[in-house]
Amino acid sequence: MNNKISTAPLAGFMELLPQDQLVFERFRSTIVNVYELYGFTPIDTPIIERAEVLLAKAGGDTEKQIYRFSKGKNDLALRFDLTVPLARYVSEYLNELVFPFRRYAVSKVFRGERPQRGRFREFYQADIDIIGRETLGIESDAEIAAVICHTFTALGIERFTLRINNRKLLTGLLDTLCPGIQSVAVLRAVDKLEKVGTDNVIAELVANGIGQEVSQQLLMALSFRGSFAEAALVLAAPPFNTKLCESGVTELLALGQSLEALKVPAERVQVDLSIARGLDYYTGTVYETKLDDYPEFGSVCSGGRYDNLASQYCGSELPGVGISIGLTRLFDQLRSVGIDVVAAGPKTPVQVVILPMMEDNSCALSVAAALRAQGVKVLVYSEGKRFKEKLKYADRLQVPFAVIIGEDEITKGAYALKDLRTGQQWLLSLPELIQRLV
Amino acid sequence: MNNKISTAPLAGFMELLPQDQLVFERFRSTIVNVYELYGFTPIDTPIIERAEVLLAKAGGDTEKQIYRFSKGKNDLALRFDLTVPLARYVSEYLNELVFPFRRYAVSKVFRGERPQRGRFREFYQADIDIIGRETLGIESDAEIAAVICHTFTALGIERFTLRINNRKLLTGLLDTLCPGIQSVAVLRAVDKLEKVGTDNVIAELVANGIGQEVSQQLLMALSFRGSFAEAALVLAAPPFNTKLCESGVTELLALGQSLEALKVPAERVQVDLSIARGLDYYTGTVYETKLDDYPEFGSVCSGGRYDNLASQYCGSELPGVGISIGLTRLFDQLRSVGIDVVAAGPKTPVQVVILPMMEDNSCALSVAAALRAQGVKVLVYSEGKRFKEKLKYADRLQVPFAVIIGEDEITKGAYALKDLRTGQQWLLSLPELIQRLV
Repeated sequence: MNNKISTAPLAGFMELLPQDQLVFERFRSTIVNVYELYGFTPIDTPIIERAEVLLAKAGGDTEKQIYRFSKGKNDLALRFDLTVPLARYVSEYLNELVFPFRRYAVSKVFRGERPQRGRFREFYQADIDIIGRETLGIESDAEIAAVICHTFTALGIERFTLRINNRKLLTGLLDTLCPGIQSVAVLRAVDKLEKVGTDNVIAELVANGIGQEVSQQLLMALSFRGSFAEAALVLAAPPFNTKLCESGVTELLALGQSLEALKVPAERVQVDLSIARGLDYYTGTVYETKLDDYPEFGSVCSGGRYDNLASQYCGSELPGVGISIGLTRLFDQLRSVGIDVVAAGPKTPVQVVILPMMEDNSCALSVAAALRAQGVKVLVYSEGKRFKEKLKYADRLQVPFAVIIGEDEITKGAYALKDLRTGQQWLLSLPELIQRLV
Repeated sequence: MNNKISTAPLAGFMELLPQDQLVFERFRSTIVNVYELYGFTPIDTPIIERAEVLLAKAGGDTEKQIYRFSKGKNDLALRFDLTVPLARYVSEYLNELVFPFRRYAVSKVFRGERPQRGRFREFYQADIDIIGRETLGIESDAEIAAVICHTFTALGIERFTLRINNRKLLTGLLDTLCPGIQSVAVLRAVDKLEKVGTDNVIAELVANGIGQEVSQQLLMALSFRGSFAEAALVLAAPPFNTKLCESGVTELLALGQSLEALKVPAERVQVDLSIARGLDYYTGTVYETKLDDYPEFGSVCSGGRYDNLASQYCGSELPGVGISIGLTRLFDQLRSVGIDVVAAGPKTPVQVVILPMMEDNSCALSVAAALRAQGVKVLVYSEGKRFKEKLKYADRLQVPFAVIIGEDEITKGAYALKDLRTGQQWLLSLPELIQRLV
């Protein structure tokens, strides 16, 4: 025995007790079920990739955070997201896949960040993407938005807002108001609007070479938030009614129409012209999702449209649209404010525990076999403890039902079924017992 | 574009096309469902652990194969099995867990082995363990055996044999026939019996200091294979009817009785006195599972009873019993011989694809929304392609049904539902369509 080895999980790694793990599994399967409703199919790529594959397009933060190591001659790394592996996968199986290709992945990714509250080094992402070959219609962007709304509703989170914008509109507006300006820096500045406020953003825009007046005009235009109907009016007027903004406006409003056809509740969706998303990766629609009661969580589901998924790996043009939910982080955030997601469910997969009252457990095992053959999840407590301790065991596990088996029960062929939540008890034959529990 | 980056997965890493991934998911969920029927609860520990935790008890092969790296001041490694993390987990949460603790885990583990056919560097293991606190009855060993049989039957693999032995019987026999001999080396030699044959094992036993005659006597005794009833007779006679073998005999026969109570089909289970398992870890019951038609696969599910799960981390005595299925390997093996496991299922999660025949997709999206609200998994094909190409898309995905939506359909409020497997077609109202597909 060596007491010096710490058995605590490392900082930045989530580990759950059984009853919490079960909630997490339900959280995860609720999301997967919605993803499948929209025709997405699961894909599982390796956790270890060639470092050169992962770093082909990556920037400074990623290089710093990535877990990289060598084994033999191989320069390896752990994936830091699910999008880069998707790009590699689609490039590799280009001729085998059917496009548009809709895949989901709910898997762990790894980032060696400085650990802090709400940041994890190993965490689940739940991603969906639709990848087209050469073209991909705007309806895909609408379906992605519908999945987001469906997912949060299915998780029992009623009060959320999906904010949508289109990057083409932003770049069109920049080309209209301040042609020649480098748009990425401006988009990054605008993206901070909610965090740092108007004055700071204007200061940053001015620092990027945009005049004070134009900066104000820009922010004024981008401060619009509202429904698609309201957006249609605003976007038909200056400064948006120019040739340069046209394709952004068209896409955004077509997306709105498809959302209506998809019966997405209008009150959950907002056009927000200030949403830019940090990544220069996105080229069209962008999404952010906020919980109305917890704005401090930040965006809990983000993504967007990109022109070309895999330019670093293959020559084919692969436009796509996708989103990601940081599952581990969101789960942790919801727990931290006491929201028990998909809480109505049980605390254990076990539906019934069988408690034998005598030493010979064979009758208990037979009853278990009969119930399991009918699909009932059964645990037999076969340790030689006092009956009180056996009951305590079932209570601690929070199993809903117990079947108690004693001499009397066996001779009479009747079994006591006890509802451990209410204390109610019935004496049942084996067929009755099965019927009651199936 | 950089054509030099290889997008192929690394050697020793399994990656599946969507239709195969779906089979794998079904394979996995079939196993998980059986595990839950027996009252096991899911636990998910980190993939990255402290190297000292993983290597606390590990031997030479593990040290060579482990993926180890540092990040900041941390000496880290990827887990190479699910048992060591379980030992850490149980030690850490000793007071929060309810014992006996039954957990399952189906997760990836990592071993930097020399890649060869059927060996993987990243692979899924599907483990169950029952951990007691100080004591754990033999019924747990029987339940583990029942899970193995139930699992392979659920996977549609009818012809398999679970071989069971008890280490105490082996060591008892050694103490009887050749007292003072180091048992681990002998057990390892005996374990190779099926692979290398009697003569080679005898040679190895002789090399370990056992006389030729005793070696032959030993192998003769251990060559028994048969039912529990037959085993009872053999074990009542010499050389087993000694005080030294008693507890092994008692446990093995009690296990057999519990298996009967659990209605485990007798023809699937065999007592095999030569089974020892390589690990010195096991102290009682040991299991091996072979597929009758594919002995070359080796054991596809192995495990056993151990006296103390976590002696390297904590002072509590934690006896346990568990097994592991090398999921990735078994899946690969079954595919290599053309057994399509749980084959009856669909090739895509999508139940119906909606094919709009005109440019405006809003009706198609509305029908999709109505079906999804009822839980039907729907894919809308909204790209502007010719109808023939749309049908080809549905065919390639192997979706069972298509709903075709044209002008006529919309004005008449009737939708054409086509069974893509038979070619049959019906004209249905929306409520009829929903009723048909739900």
